[in-house]
Amino acid sequence: MTRYRIALVPGDGIGTEVLPPAEAALEAVGRRHGIEFAFDAFDWSCQRYLAEGAMMPADGLDRIRGHDAVLLGAVGWPGVPDHVSLWGLLIPIRREFQQYVNLRPVRVLEGVPSPLRGAGAGDVDLVVVRENVEGEYSEIGGRMGRGTAEELAVQESVFTRRGITRVAEYAYALAEDRGRHVTSATKSNGIVHTMPFWDEVVAEVAARHPGVRSDKEHIDALAAKLVLAPGRFDVIVGSNLFGDILSDLAAAVAGSIGVAPAGNLNPEREFPSMFEPVHGSAPDIAGQGRANPLGAIWSAVLMLDHLGHPEAGAELLAAATGALADGVSTADLGGTADTAGYTRAVLDRIGP
Amino acid sequence: MTRYRIALVPGDGIGTEVLPPAEAALEAVGRRHGIEFAFDAFDWSCQRYLAEGAMMPADGLDRIRGHDAVLLGAVGWPGVPDHVSLWGLLIPIRREFQQYVNLRPVRVLEGVPSPLRGAGAGDVDLVVVRENVEGEYSEIGGRMGRGTAEELAVQESVFTRRGITRVAEYAYALAEDRGRHVTSATKSNGIVHTMPFWDEVVAEVAARHPGVRSDKEHIDALAAKLVLAPGRFDVIVGSNLFGDILSDLAAAVAGSIGVAPAGNLNPEREFPSMFEPVHGSAPDIAGQGRANPLGAIWSAVLMLDHLGHPEAGAELLAAATGALADGVSTADLGGTADTAGYTRAVLDRIGP
Ligand SMILES: CC(C)[C@H](C(=O)O)[C@@H](O)C(=O)O
Ligand SMILES: CC(C)[C@H](C(=O)O)[C@@H](O)C(=O)O
Repeated sequence: MTRYRIALVPGDGIGTEVLPPAEAALEAVGRRHGIEFAFDAFDWSCQRYLAEGAMMPADGLDRIRGHDAVLLGAVGWPGVPDHVSLWGLLIPIRREFQQYVNLRPVRVLEGVPSPLRGAGAGDVDLVVVRENVEGEYSEIGGRMGRGTAEELAVQESVFTRRGITRVAEYAYALAEDRGRHVTSATKSNGIVHTMPFWDEVVAEVAARHPGVRSDKEHIDALAAKLVLAPGRFDVIVGSNLFGDILSDLAAAVAGSIGVAPAGNLNPEREFPSMFEPVHGSAPDIAGQGRANPLGAIWSAVLMLDHLGHPEAGAELLAAATGALADGVSTADLGGTADTAGYTRAVLDRIGP
Repeated sequence: MTRYRIALVPGDGIGTEVLPPAEAALEAVGRRHGIEFAFDAFDWSCQRYLAEGAMMPADGLDRIRGHDAVLLGAVGWPGVPDHVSLWGLLIPIRREFQQYVNLRPVRVLEGVPSPLRGAGAGDVDLVVVRENVEGEYSEIGGRMGRGTAEELAVQESVFTRRGITRVAEYAYALAEDRGRHVTSATKSNGIVHTMPFWDEVVAEVAARHPGVRSDKEHIDALAAKLVLAPGRFDVIVGSNLFGDILSDLAAAVAGSIGVAPAGNLNPEREFPSMFEPVHGSAPDIAGQGRANPLGAIWSAVLMLDHLGHPEAGAELLAAATGALADGVSTADLGGTADTAGYTRAVLDRIGP
């Protein structure tokens, strides 16, 4: 029996509704594969911020440092500025635990229609590998001349050889297990200091992986091609900002942001990695039992993969997508099931 | 009779093939509206760079400063790095002439099928207003520790109150003439110094235009919504980088980058504005007479609008789209016409 300690951070809104299904699904699939989970729940959220003035306690990071992984629901609530909820919880976890890869698989699933004419189930199958701890998301910068006509703001992007190398190595290794094709997102024609550096370092990594085909596309053209020919991509590697944009865009091309999963990985497993559905806390439908837990369940699949249990992961993903293919889905996908109903269908498919 | 002096910069590849059709179309429509054009051609291009070491002469900007507008074909050629061709020609023109608005109208045209299931002719009709001279495209930055494991690159984004205000004012004024809705692209949850500043200044401008509905979307979510519900947008205003990405993405949603036009505007007409198709120099099909001149012709329409002749512009656009609707189109749109054939169809529709 393999045992894992998982930190659960349900967060806000539907975050608290989609984690219990993921937990139940993990327990069910774990039973069949000799894996046991101990879940510790943490109430870090905007509600906590409003009551106690901080998203998490001062020693929050230390409380989860020893866990094998973190499963997060969603963070954000009206009245709490984004920079508070994110920079007070999500981003410190990503950085402290060196989760330098943000992994965003995108696939057209049966039961989730793509908005593209050409794209049916199976036609799009790509992974966005996003650099997750440096680049354009930087705390360096500020404002000057507040309130005057001359006011200005500056923001520094910082890219390191080490940071680019490790995320590119991850992307190339992943491509070796998949379609052997990496597309690097750049903008070296417009962003003239950091992006040519990105290109150079990615090219050095590419040279170490001669079995993988390498392409480079400017971010504007790449965004357009994701819409015009998404089937052409296998692994896309991009900076923090470019990866953020491309992964949401690719999820939309596949039909829905609402079902997309994300892994914030520390590939060396020196620190816990964090798994979270891409959707937000959805205040408009929160508390009604209607949330779609597929994004959270698929994120749990990424967690199983990361912990070294790809067969268990594949079984869970097959159960979740199989329920959809059977026509059981929540309202956001045009179905009639509620959160509990869809979850039951997934658990039934996993079996006792 | 109104007379204009237009600087023609055909540039590279198919740039040289799409400008003569635009010139002919302008002359034809001008005859019917009492407008006369004097065209001066400039050979600024990658070919010139390879022969003489510079994309344009040292006094290039002064040679076109007195013109009423610049019509540009395409710039870029294999063997000449992008940062040379762009920062040696396109970007200096944008900056020296304070072309602080990059105007990118996007429409689904009859004869140009959208890749989206839902979108037929007329379903998408939006304009991206891109800030065109500051922001993320900055010369400030550099590299340190070249070749070492510790190498890093930094790049400064610079946003000014003046720069944001004027582009937002342009967007709101445009929306007042259109659908009375502006969506501002931001990323204030991740880019924590410049983007909250952008949001604040755009909100100040919005407050001066109470008749226009204002929305704000993070760039990742906005990219997704452009694919999932493009019909919801009217005017989108974004920074230099975000506007660049969104305008190519929106053009793809409408079916083709190949037909999209762009205006680099100095709205005050203190300096010449520049008009250019969005497509590149297309080395793969250059010299074969197969290029689609619609992007260049539509850019000439934007020039007519800017110079104060919207009726002439509307007539030219109707001729260009009418030819398409009649089934005359170039190979990139699935048609059988060559450049000359499509141009003839447009000129025929304008009449003598
Ligand atoms: C070529 C490049 C520098 C340019 C830009 O990003 O500004 C182009 O993409 C554009 O949109 O005009
Ligand atoms: C909420 C935001 C800061 C975050 C990001 O941009 O990193 C989100 O969009 C994501 O992709 O996880």
